[in-house]
Amino acid sequence: MAGTDQTKDAVSGGPAIVLVEPQMGENIGTAARAMLNFGLTDMRLVRPRDAWPNEKARAPASHADVVIDGARVYRQTADAVAELNHVYATTARPRDMLKPVLTPRAAMEAARRHAAAGETSGILFGREKSGLHNDDVAVSEAVVAVPVNPAFASLNIAQAVLLLGYEWFLTGDDTPGHEFASGTTRPANHEELMGFFDHLEQELDAGGFLYPPEKRPTMVRNIRNIFSRIGLMEQEVRTLRGIVSTLTKPRKRGDS
Amino acid sequence: MAGTDQTKDAVSGGPAIVLVEPQMGENIGTAARAMLNFGLTDMRLVRPRDAWPNEKARAPASHADVVIDGARVYRQTADAVAELNHVYATTARPRDMLKPVLTPRAAMEAARRHAAAGETSGILFGREKSGLHNDDVAVSEAVVAVPVNPAFASLNIAQAVLLLGYEWFLTGDDTPGHEFASGTTRPANHEELMGFFDHLEQELDAGGFLYPPEKRPTMVRNIRNIFSRIGLMEQEVRTLRGIVSTLTKPRKRGDS
Repeated sequence: MAGTDQTKDAVSGGPAIVLVEPQMGENIGTAARAMLNFGLTDMRLVRPRDAWPNEKARAPASHADVVIDGARVYRQTADAVAELNHVYATTARPRDMLKPVLTPRAAMEAARRHAAAGETSGILFGREKSGLHNDDVAVSEAVVAVPVNPAFASLNIAQAVLLLGYEWFLTGDDTPGHEFASGTTRPANHEELMGFFDHLEQELDAGGFLYPPEKRPTMVRNIRNIFSRIGLMEQEVRTLRGIVSTLTKPRKRGDS
Repeated sequence: MAGTDQTKDAVSGGPAIVLVEPQMGENIGTAARAMLNFGLTDMRLVRPRDAWPNEKARAPASHADVVIDGARVYRQTADAVAELNHVYATTARPRDMLKPVLTPRAAMEAARRHAAAGETSGILFGREKSGLHNDDVAVSEAVVAVPVNPAFASLNIAQAVLLLGYEWFLTGDDTPGHEFASGTTRPANHEELMGFFDHLEQELDAGGFLYPPEKRPTMVRNIRNIFSRIGLMEQEVRTLRGIVSTLTKPRKRGDS
């Protein structure tokens, strides 16, 4: 897959992902994959422990070559974010610093607004064990803290990148929360539904199921209720009518 | 860290995470870690390729022992979800099946509503290469599809678990999107802010900065504007007054 193809459908204008002193090439690769999953391609590495390019990043990147091959290396965080308009630091809520604290969602909504105004953003991620240095946090516009189980709060770099990338992608995504995958069919209309009920109830009357007569209205209502609340598709109504027809057909053999 | 400590603060009633035919122990471990990050502890494995317990899962779980040690193994998906009230299948949007399709957010909001009503949920995740079989998808109540870059859409199991766990956690989390970490201080009040402005402008007048007089009102307004929009804390106003005092003190040595 060529780089242009990988980013063809990507949401553009996304934040730069700045990994400060990453240690494991595998984590850089996994972060690259997570970035491209959500249309981010601008990876910046500040003082990676090992040489770059690092072949250990290649396999975990899972063919996110456009990110790996485009990653740039810097000696200082300040160099890595020099031209960016907005810089965010992913870290735990600071205890000794006056600083706005954003959720990933609020931060990425801000980044999206900035992008719409032609302004660029970057997100700092600290090193595996120790996170970001306070000096890097201090010059960031705000802290991004992922809400997490306080009794088990450590997220690795690639996981944090994934969550920020996901929230970035959602700000530009119009997928409805709830859809129905319906292929070529459409929801059944009322006439089709009533046609099925007539068919079914006729066969149930014939079989003596809707008996005694004084209970028939309640039984019919209960049965109709079951099938009404499925939200049946037109194709499914035809399937159900086929089932009823099949079940009522005289059997070729058997004992019923 | 004991299991009870790890889950002490966890959000309870979360969905079971059901990994169907997972292949790599490492992925199971990483998924376990992601689960506990978001307070989920009920892991179920259907036909894992390798024996279980699997020591390869231990290190990537990063001490999420309560999840790893509590994981249960099943021969069939149906067995793994037998007692659950609601079953969701994470997969791409189905092309040949009539099925509700939910975003992770909508699905976890539903799971939270179910939990509030005392009903249990589970989420199926397919195997590394091939995902879930259609038979497992067919008996699920709905599909959960993660919105993702269509040109680079493959998420690994642990990443998918992380995103669903994250969305689950958010449904029970009341962290405001935007906060200010302020420690023991509080926002400055208007009087404190005006006191700083008086102090600063007096020194700037003395130093001849606010000149010529006809431009003074505009210059004062511009300066006040800078400091007004910071949203200064009381402690920061005192810091700024200290800075002004220091800068205007006669120097002990030097040439200015």
